Amino acid sequence: MAKQVATNITWHEGNITREERNKNLGQKGATVWFTGLSGSGKSTIAVALEQVLLQRGKHAYCLDGDNVRHGLNKNLGFSAEDREENIRRIGEVAKLFADAGMLALTSFISPYRADRDKARKLHDDIGLDFIECYVECPLDVAEQRDPKGLYKKARAGEIKGFTGIDDPYEEPLNAELVLRTDLYDVAGCVQQVLTLLEERGILSA
Amino acid sequence: MAKQVATNITWHEGNITREERNKNLGQKGATVWFTGLSGSGKSTIAVALEQVLLQRGKHAYCLDGDNVRHGLNKNLGFSAEDREENIRRIGEVAKLFADAGMLALTSFISPYRADRDKARKLHDDIGLDFIECYVECPLDVAEQRDPKGLYKKARAGEIKGFTGIDDPYEEPLNAELVLRTDLYDVAGCVQQVLTLLEERGILSA
Repeated sequence: MAKQVATNITWHEGNITREERNKNLGQKGATVWFTGLSGSGKSTIAVALEQVLLQRGKHAYCLDGDNVRHGLNKNLGFSAEDREENIRRIGEVAKLFADAGMLALTSFISPYRADRDKARKLHDDIGLDFIECYVECPLDVAEQRDPKGLYKKARAGEIKGFTGIDDPYEEPLNAELVLRTDLYDVAGCVQQVLTLLEERGILSA
Repeated sequence: MAKQVATNITWHEGNITREERNKNLGQKGATVWFTGLSGSGKSTIAVALEQVLLQRGKHAYCLDGDNVRHGLNKNLGFSAEDREENIRRIGEVAKLFADAGMLALTSFISPYRADRDKARKLHDDIGLDFIECYVECPLDVAEQRDPKGLYKKARAGEIKGFTGIDDPYEEPLNAELVLRTDLYDVAGCVQQVLTLLEERGILSA
């Protein structure tokens, strides 16, 4: 027989609900999924958005190549199968963050419509908001920026299957937002996302 | 040239630091890793702990079979290789949650010492707290509880490789806590975890 220990601990049967977690965090958990060419500005916008949300006392976390490709997905390569599994896992992790009440901000090229749609469905199926933000930028502008020197390598044939060069980017057909980084600066793009989050009631609980 | 849009949005170069996220959440992100036999009480303690943390305005999330095995890890079976990959992914996801400032509460049998030690190392390597809680309970007590009827099936040979029956459970050698669920009730176990979290300064930022 287990000992009764004197504590001031009380709890109810069953799990904490998402609503309870949201209320505790003062926001509604959701995923903001940035998609677009390499160099389009996905990470720049996500990082700036995280900062602005934090300034407002909101809670977000960026999932990106730095913390996912070298960790959870380090056993995946760049075959078609592995690319699909890469995006599948990211969708599942973003869903867990959103379910936890966090704002998951994902920055991955995620070039295939079918993969993004599956990530969306994971959220839809359990009533979580999935905000697809197409970070749109003409290829020549992204290639001129080339922040990681990847286009140069792809043009030289040192990288095979590079999105926009020798692998397709499938534009979203029904993205919640299209952020034209060739026309608007970072603050302008962040403002568009913030406005949408506010309109959807995501920034309060 | 991108348009300058009139906003009140400002941000600094670089990523938000973990310290900034922790401060915003009023706690230090960490992983509390519950390990033990099926029926030992891992999930019961984790769920009660999440509730008590939430009552105190802290932010936690349970990772368990329900939200991981049917989602992120649904493409894994029960081969030795898949079991290892199962725990590896859970360790990586818990690390992401902890890095985000959350308290990740994981409830998985996680029977092998090497797998748990790898999850610990992922956290250690980037300076995150990893609190291993061995939820200890004699096999005969766990088997008598048998909340999911799994021991019965394992004894009948309907489940192969079941921990404690025909697959080993490797007890932790250096767990931060040993929670004897045959001796203490749930409140008593939760109190022990809370006390440790307080002592480690995890419940403030």
